[in-house]
Amino acid sequence: MNYPLDICLLSPDEQHRRISGLQLEVPALISDNANLFYLTGRVFCGYLYLEPGREPRYFVKRPSELRGEGISLIRKPEEIGLSCPRLGLELDSLSYSQAMRLQAALGADEIINVSPKIMLGRAVKTPLEQKLLREDGVRHAAVYSRIPGLFREGMTDIELQAEIERIDRLEGCLGQFRVNGPDMEIHMGNVITGRNADTPSPYDFAMGGAGLSPSLPVGASGEEIKPGQAVMIDMNGNFNGYMTDMTRTFACGKLSEKALRAHQCSIDICHTLASLGKPGAECKALYEKAKEMAHEAGLEDCFMGHKYHAGFVGHGVGIQINELPVLAPRSKMTLTEGNVIAIEPKFVIEGVGAVGIENTYICCADGLECITPAPEALTQLL
Amino acid sequence: MNYPLDICLLSPDEQHRRISGLQLEVPALISDNANLFYLTGRVFCGYLYLEPGREPRYFVKRPSELRGEGISLIRKPEEIGLSCPRLGLELDSLSYSQAMRLQAALGADEIINVSPKIMLGRAVKTPLEQKLLREDGVRHAAVYSRIPGLFREGMTDIELQAEIERIDRLEGCLGQFRVNGPDMEIHMGNVITGRNADTPSPYDFAMGGAGLSPSLPVGASGEEIKPGQAVMIDMNGNFNGYMTDMTRTFACGKLSEKALRAHQCSIDICHTLASLGKPGAECKALYEKAKEMAHEAGLEDCFMGHKYHAGFVGHGVGIQINELPVLAPRSKMTLTEGNVIAIEPKFVIEGVGAVGIENTYICCADGLECITPAPEALTQLL
Repeated sequence: MNYPLDICLLSPDEQHRRISGLQLEVPALISDNANLFYLTGRVFCGYLYLEPGREPRYFVKRPSELRGEGISLIRKPEEIGLSCPRLGLELDSLSYSQAMRLQAALGADEIINVSPKIMLGRAVKTPLEQKLLREDGVRHAAVYSRIPGLFREGMTDIELQAEIERIDRLEGCLGQFRVNGPDMEIHMGNVITGRNADTPSPYDFAMGGAGLSPSLPVGASGEEIKPGQAVMIDMNGNFNGYMTDMTRTFACGKLSEKALRAHQCSIDICHTLASLGKPGAECKALYEKAKEMAHEAGLEDCFMGHKYHAGFVGHGVGIQINELPVLAPRSKMTLTEGNVIAIEPKFVIEGVGAVGIENTYICCADGLECITPAPEALTQLL
Repeated sequence: MNYPLDICLLSPDEQHRRISGLQLEVPALISDNANLFYLTGRVFCGYLYLEPGREPRYFVKRPSELRGEGISLIRKPEEIGLSCPRLGLELDSLSYSQAMRLQAALGADEIINVSPKIMLGRAVKTPLEQKLLREDGVRHAAVYSRIPGLFREGMTDIELQAEIERIDRLEGCLGQFRVNGPDMEIHMGNVITGRNADTPSPYDFAMGGAGLSPSLPVGASGEEIKPGQAVMIDMNGNFNGYMTDMTRTFACGKLSEKALRAHQCSIDICHTLASLGKPGAECKALYEKAKEMAHEAGLEDCFMGHKYHAGFVGHGVGIQINELPVLAPRSKMTLTEGNVIAIEPKFVIEGVGAVGIENTYICCADGLECITPAPEALTQLL
């Protein structure tokens, strides 16, 4: 795999579109890896300096081989050599110490948080980003199609997960699960079965699980996959720096009537939300509709968890797994053309596990386009 | 896998030892996952409040099931309800926005960076931590012993890596590669061969590689493993929340004389540094000794890289892969009993790949104990 040494791997038009979408009003120094990838098409060690109305400048620590207009090689931020009284910084991700260092290095009297504007800009995907996400969805679905062939009787959740991880990686998955903020840690995704689905996790994912260690308490816990249990699979779809988010549920033997009903309810919610979702739709209304459907089906007690209920039913995805907008009761956002959202109405059924599906959708002018084309019905493992 | 719901999974003695090792002089609010794991034995969503001379207090957001002395459930930091004029915060990892929010929530006039003290405290591993790291080393070596059996002619680096990842995971590896700071991203480790070893990466690892995508430009790149090439394998050794760091090199066919010589030089450097390392030894002197041995062997041009030279030969490991102390020219630290360090003198040989080894050592009263017990000589794959 080789790619050019240009500091910007995006076309000038594409880069310009993304930068102007941020609507920055002050000069900003960008160093968060996800944001650098968004604004240049690559991760490098250093800083991107954006000044409204001017060409981007790049202050690169590593690798020093990178080339292009506007590059300066530096060893430390004090060598940037710019003076900027009002400086935009990514204050939601930059450490306090780094923020103070950059403020001093650029002699700024005032620092302004540009993280919210960047997250809002990134929430509206360009046609190129949408294309990359569609490609992810197809590859993601191809991996999922091989899951039934990986199952063997008596397997544990983590054994099945290891086999899925292998196929995912052989099919080109980068493995990395980029997250926004410190409250999410996960390795390659979540395979969850039986009573483990009812174990709450400290992280802000829809589903929990005990994990294998209190150092990473989420997901597969070594639980055997037994007849009568559901296996919910929510694995990594990052094949190109963008991530689709997709969950499918597999049945080991015969599941309870409630589990079957809840799975169908999840499919129904996805289809209903997909038909209601369009530019201008209120995110909180979509959440309320999902909750109402769960209530009408008599499944509110296990909707988005049983012991612990996650407070959302969908979220933006892209370079990171938790982008904007969020489909949650207190969201003030409406859907915008170019948003890419995962919708994941899930149910935890005591003794069975978690059931339901998750799809990723692009918000197009005329509605939501599903880009995770895998069969939605329960698939039998045994 | 089940573990108790106690907020602190460490014995009171163990926890007290770790807290007092931090030598905090001001009350501190801790929320970094690595530090929470260090000080409680688990990751949770919330805050640990340490006040010198008092019992720890816990402000827990999730999971709400946790129990024990000193727990308060909160939904947001404004509910902590303490007032603290001088407040210690993890300012090297906490975002600027979070730091400001916590300062306001606790009414602090002044915030003090406790990150450096915590990293210094964590650098001295307790006997329990040393035991966990020894266990990692044995399990890590068991995974590596299976590598020759995974190789098939014509494989690419990433295909071999996917097979190693699978074995690693089936043997209980948690997968997560915890790193300190924003400058490191990696998935499960680094398998590198041929010219890819000469591709510099933005990240602060000893070795580079192009990776599969400019969104994660490090490591295996899809390069075929051909006769005459070395395959350097530096994979994840996190089986319990602590990580051993170990590299071994495998030969596909016959390697060049220079590659063989460099690999032996790496082994010699490790053995020499292991014999010189003891409490009181200067970290920079160990680095200089390694560099001197590479120079004497006529290998300085390819020591720690060829196009790009990493500026260290070893580093602390533990909960994160990049802890203190660092064996580097400007280090002012000396080794202390209880330090755990990885020593990784590596060489990049043009056209061949990278060669050399890396071991993890515990600094004991009488010298360095190697805890990564795998054969060090080149192993033939073909």
